[in-house]
Amino acid sequence: MSAEKVNVLIEALPYIKEFYGKTVVIKYGGSAMVDCRLKEAVIQDVILMRYVGMNPVIVHGGGPAITAMLDRMGKKTEFINGLRVTDSETMEIVEMVLVGKINQEIVALLNQLGGKAVGLSGKDGQLIQAEKKLANWYDESGQEVTADIGYVGEVRKVNPAVIETLVTEGYIPVIAPIGVGRQGETYNINADYVAGAVAGALKAHKLILLTDVEGIFADLEDKKSLISCIKVDEVPGLINRGIISGGMIPKIQCCVEALEEGVSRAHIINGRIPHSLLLEIFTRKGIGTMVVK
Amino acid sequence: MSAEKVNVLIEALPYIKEFYGKTVVIKYGGSAMVDCRLKEAVIQDVILMRYVGMNPVIVHGGGPAITAMLDRMGKKTEFINGLRVTDSETMEIVEMVLVGKINQEIVALLNQLGGKAVGLSGKDGQLIQAEKKLANWYDESGQEVTADIGYVGEVRKVNPAVIETLVTEGYIPVIAPIGVGRQGETYNINADYVAGAVAGALKAHKLILLTDVEGIFADLEDKKSLISCIKVDEVPGLINRGIISGGMIPKIQCCVEALEEGVSRAHIINGRIPHSLLLEIFTRKGIGTMVVK
Amino acid sequence: MSAEKVNVLIEALPYIKEFYGKTVVIKYGGSAMVDCRLKEAVIQDVILMRYVGMNPVIVHGGGPAITAMLDRMGKKTEFINGLRVTDSETMEIVEMVLVGKINQEIVALLNQLGGKAVGLSGKDGQLIQAEKKLANWYDESGQEVTADIGYVGEVRKVNPAVIETLVTEGYIPVIAPIGVGRQGETYNINADYVAGAVAGALKAHKLILLTDVEGIFADLEDKKSLISCIKVDEVPGLINRGIISGGMIPKIQCCVEALEEGVSRAHIINGRIPHSLLLEIFTRKGIGTMVVK
Amino acid sequence: MSAEKVNVLIEALPYIKEFYGKTVVIKYGGSAMVDCRLKEAVIQDVILMRYVGMNPVIVHGGGPAITAMLDRMGKKTEFINGLRVTDSETMEIVEMVLVGKINQEIVALLNQLGGKAVGLSGKDGQLIQAEKKLANWYDESGQEVTADIGYVGEVRKVNPAVIETLVTEGYIPVIAPIGVGRQGETYNINADYVAGAVAGALKAHKLILLTDVEGIFADLEDKKSLISCIKVDEVPGLINRGIISGGMIPKIQCCVEALEEGVSRAHIINGRIPHSLLLEIFTRKGIGTMVVK
Amino acid sequence: MSAEKVNVLIEALPYIKEFYGKTVVIKYGGSAMVDCRLKEAVIQDVILMRYVGMNPVIVHGGGPAITAMLDRMGKKTEFINGLRVTDSETMEIVEMVLVGKINQEIVALLNQLGGKAVGLSGKDGQLIQAEKKLANWYDESGQEVTADIGYVGEVRKVNPAVIETLVTEGYIPVIAPIGVGRQGETYNINADYVAGAVAGALKAHKLILLTDVEGIFADLEDKKSLISCIKVDEVPGLINRGIISGGMIPKIQCCVEALEEGVSRAHIINGRIPHSLLLEIFTRKGIGTMVVK
Amino acid sequence: MSAEKVNVLIEALPYIKEFYGKTVVIKYGGSAMVDCRLKEAVIQDVILMRYVGMNPVIVHGGGPAITAMLDRMGKKTEFINGLRVTDSETMEIVEMVLVGKINQEIVALLNQLGGKAVGLSGKDGQLIQAEKKLANWYDESGQEVTADIGYVGEVRKVNPAVIETLVTEGYIPVIAPIGVGRQGETYNINADYVAGAVAGALKAHKLILLTDVEGIFADLEDKKSLISCIKVDEVPGLINRGIISGGMIPKIQCCVEALEEGVSRAHIINGRIPHSLLLEIFTRKGIGTMVVK
Repeated sequence: MSAEKVNVLIEALPYIKEFYGKTVVIKYGGSAMVDCRLKEAVIQDVILMRYVGMNPVIVHGGGPAITAMLDRMGKKTEFINGLRVTDSETMEIVEMVLVGKINQEIVALLNQLGGKAVGLSGKDGQLIQAEKKLANWYDESGQEVTADIGYVGEVRKVNPAVIETLVTEGYIPVIAPIGVGRQGETYNINADYVAGAVAGALKAHKLILLTDVEGIFADLEDKKSLISCIKVDEVPGLINRGIISGGMIPKIQCCVEALEEGVSRAHIINGRIPHSLLLEIFTRKGIGTMVVK
Repeated sequence: MSAEKVNVLIEALPYIKEFYGKTVVIKYGGSAMVDCRLKEAVIQDVILMRYVGMNPVIVHGGGPAITAMLDRMGKKTEFINGLRVTDSETMEIVEMVLVGKINQEIVALLNQLGGKAVGLSGKDGQLIQAEKKLANWYDESGQEVTADIGYVGEVRKVNPAVIETLVTEGYIPVIAPIGVGRQGETYNINADYVAGAVAGALKAHKLILLTDVEGIFADLEDKKSLISCIKVDEVPGLINRGIISGGMIPKIQCCVEALEEGVSRAHIINGRIPHSLLLEIFTRKGIGTMVVK
Repeated sequence: MSAEKVNVLIEALPYIKEFYGKTVVIKYGGSAMVDCRLKEAVIQDVILMRYVGMNPVIVHGGGPAITAMLDRMGKKTEFINGLRVTDSETMEIVEMVLVGKINQEIVALLNQLGGKAVGLSGKDGQLIQAEKKLANWYDESGQEVTADIGYVGEVRKVNPAVIETLVTEGYIPVIAPIGVGRQGETYNINADYVAGAVAGALKAHKLILLTDVEGIFADLEDKKSLISCIKVDEVPGLINRGIISGGMIPKIQCCVEALEEGVSRAHIINGRIPHSLLLEIFTRKGIGTMVVK
Repeated sequence: MSAEKVNVLIEALPYIKEFYGKTVVIKYGGSAMVDCRLKEAVIQDVILMRYVGMNPVIVHGGGPAITAMLDRMGKKTEFINGLRVTDSETMEIVEMVLVGKINQEIVALLNQLGGKAVGLSGKDGQLIQAEKKLANWYDESGQEVTADIGYVGEVRKVNPAVIETLVTEGYIPVIAPIGVGRQGETYNINADYVAGAVAGALKAHKLILLTDVEGIFADLEDKKSLISCIKVDEVPGLINRGIISGGMIPKIQCCVEALEEGVSRAHIINGRIPHSLLLEIFTRKGIGTMVVK
Repeated sequence: MSAEKVNVLIEALPYIKEFYGKTVVIKYGGSAMVDCRLKEAVIQDVILMRYVGMNPVIVHGGGPAITAMLDRMGKKTEFINGLRVTDSETMEIVEMVLVGKINQEIVALLNQLGGKAVGLSGKDGQLIQAEKKLANWYDESGQEVTADIGYVGEVRKVNPAVIETLVTEGYIPVIAPIGVGRQGETYNINADYVAGAVAGALKAHKLILLTDVEGIFADLEDKKSLISCIKVDEVPGLINRGIISGGMIPKIQCCVEALEEGVSRAHIINGRIPHSLLLEIFTRKGIGTMVVK
Repeated sequence: MSAEKVNVLIEALPYIKEFYGKTVVIKYGGSAMVDCRLKEAVIQDVILMRYVGMNPVIVHGGGPAITAMLDRMGKKTEFINGLRVTDSETMEIVEMVLVGKINQEIVALLNQLGGKAVGLSGKDGQLIQAEKKLANWYDESGQEVTADIGYVGEVRKVNPAVIETLVTEGYIPVIAPIGVGRQGETYNINADYVAGAVAGALKAHKLILLTDVEGIFADLEDKKSLISCIKVDEVPGLINRGIISGGMIPKIQCCVEALEEGVSRAHIINGRIPHSLLLEIFTRKGIGTMVVK
């Protein structure tokens, strides 16, 4: 390490102080979970965050591994209005891939690179209590249609006790987005929503969603129009004007819900940039789009 | 509950006192994991053990679910001298089934019936550190043969910190017999050995192996010849005389190793009997075969 | 223990869970304190309650031992309108019998049968702070008469610190119904009232009064008319209608006062039934009469 | 408080420092327990000791109250070779007087004068585990005679857990010299021996026996011949030479046994002198006879 | 120590009880800091207070040592309307004398005489956060004049964390009246005000100002007219009537401010009387003038 | 912070892990204490060390400030054989400068830049217990001469309790090299020796001496001959061969003594290089000369 590099550590000091002892919930998904180099960079970022005094908590998504496994097993899944019906056999495979493969890979990599990680699903310690989520849409005639698409759930309640037990002892919890129903049944839940609900239950300082886009643009055509900060009460307007649309709507909703539960800041950042987590945390401007109250 | 039944609780009191605050490691496998009614009985037994003051820790095996999944995926596995070669693809499936399916089913059932359970694999908190195990046998000419059969491992070291953290907070840890190698690679390990090593690392009071047999018989033909207690130093003689043989040899070896690490008692009991755990613990004579120093 | 008996333990599990960590104050008196077999059953019940996670606290009465000792000492006691005048000499004997004989017998039996008990009087740690209670009645002409009948007291304040210290360390406190006045003087207090006040001060989950009757009957002539549940605001009506009368009135008043201090449930049960405590706790219906808010 | 008096506090400072945090076991008996003024002085001394940072523990004897009660009850006790035979009826009365009268009076007085006291007998928390002590003597023909004189016991084991629990919370434990046998039976034990055994079990700094004499005199006729310090290995010689004799022999033996268990200093002092405890502790020379290793 | 002297300890007991566990902040200054004999008496008083269970905290002034050092260094200081201008060079010398000389002498003496002391300035742990205080007065024409007289400060905020850390571990904190500004600059603050602010931040039981006068007199000519107790709302009247005047005004203001922050009692006593602290605390009447709400 | 800079943080991670929770004692002196820019760099380094999990403890020297103050006060100091005689007046000034000026400047700067610092001298909590050190040398005729040069001391014993109390609460202790004698007298001690003794008493992981040289050179003329590692048993040889000489001898002796007390590594590094502390800690090779067992 040269003298020049040491200056970088000194530059980082104000940020280390600012986030000392703070909880940061990271939704880990998208390209950052596929590309080997990006994956290692995210893991290193999380370990560094822990060592400089933050309490990172990871919630991961499923990524292409689930589809690959369903294909490999010749399991065909029905679609209703574009939504995959999750029957019990599909659910079983989804759970195995999320809990038995992806989660464990992240845990092993964190431990391998020097962290202390423990994997959790929503079943462990009744962490994520869920209920069935029905699909809603409007048909051609404009009538609302509701369909049961199987074991797709939404968060009913987060019981963060097991996370707190592990964090106190220095572990990094890694959470698979599986919920457990009142009768012990399994639900697949959107990982963004799980991350938001966990952040809310922990009264986390930050929720960071690692996505495959830069953030929210005022003009999608203009790469320079990234909105760096959005207030919660601007969100409805932005949706109405079509600036926030498509897959970004549920993401911004997670952010809004987390902020309402007491989280201070929510961030949508680009996981394709190596070390995007550190870039967000260790720079005054941050990267991506920040949502605040 | 009638007056008669209340007397049963009073009968149980001396056993409750005896095991108060003691750690009991249970290897859960065989028929007790397949039959629904037996499964529920085992889970109830474990929850009762926790509520009356013991610290139960479960290590589970894989059972027929692994084979079923391999079949379903059309994955053919090679055999060398009767041992299944575990290539990386097989290992991936084994891990998914053990960690993402069987483990989570046990956890969910424990929570459903009123316990507080958390699932762990050997990767969580570097719990079970493993190394490759080569297969050994003698060929027809009597020469020793050694073969690499892939990701089959043996326990190198148990790091029980995460178990202790969870037990202190009232959780029942449920452990899948997956080990992690020095480079983060995954190993499939015999669950009996994992249970023995975990019991040793925890200095458990008891190790109980739930099997599909009554215990060890002096004369296999004579159902009345069950040996209720074996001393460690009698074991080599019993093996030489063929009284302990076949699949019972590794089981008895786990027991012996656990005792040498400081476990007080090891038990081989019949998981086909409903509530066999309680029958072992709450009767003076116990059931099955006990191994002591 | 047979398979059948093991099922009884499993039946008990939901009750064990329900009362885990809860405080239960038991007024121990009447026949259950005289009959040897009943005595042992009560003590076993209390020890079992402790081992399965409850925090039992015993308040005992005096029973016939006080009268026996007064007789043995040739001490004659004056009566005013049916109330015994407790002069200082009588008080001295009452205290010796309660604290030095009955209390110690219960403590010794609890320890002998496997519990960890410590005896307390209201003087220890200023546990029960009392003041003189005057006797009130109406004379023949209907005029209210008030008389000083000596060292008969009522609870002014309970200081539960010493109970909490002992319970935290695993002890079962056994309390003699002796109060201490502002000048250090000794008062004899009705044990039901002490139990109620202690339960209130501890914000206990349950107060259980062991009596010699089944509970409260709608029709005293009809053994099938036991009222299993009474609400606090039904009590005045039941007294007015004569359904609650005589010695039951002070008992029900203790219950009402305890409930007003935050106790959840109060029970009047029949101590003549062996293991009545367990029958109350380990059955859905319970036994006797329960009073709730 | 005048300027002069304040100087006395300053004089006391070195002694307060010396004994800060130290445990002092006091055998309280003899005249100091009979005379009202002496009694109050002892209690004040103990409270002061606690407030200036020592951990005083009181073991009291019975004094004349036992004999008075036996007389009052017309209970005649048989004597064998000068030793009172303690049958079960006598034992019952002794226990009532010690635990239910004397102990409670001391506790009440300590609380009344501003301390925080809790009374204990050897039954509470199995504090003093005892066994039968046979009487031994030599008859006229010089033959050793052994006789069973009933419920007279000696200390088998002290379990100081309950004392430590109470001391940690700021209480002054007051112990009645009652022991409990293996079957829960009650034993009367010499209070000096109980004090010595308790001091040993607590590894107390000091054991102080309050007696009715000045200490040990080199020449009983010469009041100036008080021996202020005796070493343990001088004791046998002093007994042989008749300098220590009669009732002083068991007292000095308690001291020797306590010192052998790790107590630093044992003192035999005159309880007839008001505030003799403070005079012992707050003066360089002390009073009475000190026994050291 | 004679019997008579022991009685003095017993006399002190009610006061020891009353102040057990209470925090007492002492402003130490004036003659009591100059005279060797008085100095030792104050230090002994503070150590005694600690050993009998109080938590004394000392704030000291500067006394003549500062002037002496300025003279020795030939440092001339300008005066504006009678107020010394504290330039940065003067401030440096003031700090060195307060922190490096006077504070350390007090610490060393406390340790030498048996206490456990640690010196603090307002910079340690950001204990006393200060801001510049401008001087105000009215010129001849009656116009208000404001002048910058340099590094003279007033308390902006007290951060008592470091005091609490040290007190918990048994140390006596000794505080020099130096404040630290927002940019890390040093301020000299009146020690009376520092003592008042520290007492307020600690919610101390008592604030005691050691001065060179007896207290406040109703009639300065009449030594018998000492006012032993003043209520806060009497203070403005006493100032208006000229009974409180001159240097006593800021002292009484400190007292009033401390009482408003939650301190129970404030005292102005005569430090010229040896052991005046103990005389205040260990007598019913106290000495000097007490201010209460 | 650019992507490039983030990589520097990741590079630092292995070092952060290695030193997590370790104590590092830093002797701070020489040019690094004079030059403003170097001063700020050292302080930043120490704060960073604390935030990334190390426990830094600073011992500072006096530097030119002492001489400057002596000059300013016109205090002439006598020299005997080149050693300054420290009379009591000199000692007073030395203490004021070390404790009241230099120490407080470091504390204020640490707090100003975001640390939590508390200043200590050897008097605080009896931290550095010292005794007089006589000067020794050989006169022209080769005879050993011993002279009393006043209040120059050496460490007799370190009582690290106050350091541990502060470190546990997150403070950075800053220690002035002042010792306290048995009679409370003040001694000036070489700061290198104080640092070594403090490191030994704390069983620190590292002792780092910030000096004005690169380290130890095999050939003083050859700047490339820096010895990066010396074993303790090579030291005597290096002194004999003149490679370690002059002012470096006491420095290397401090290192050796610290290593013998259980410190793992001692380092002599060049404080003239900005951020030399971080360069030492965050590079595999380190800088300067390391001394190990």
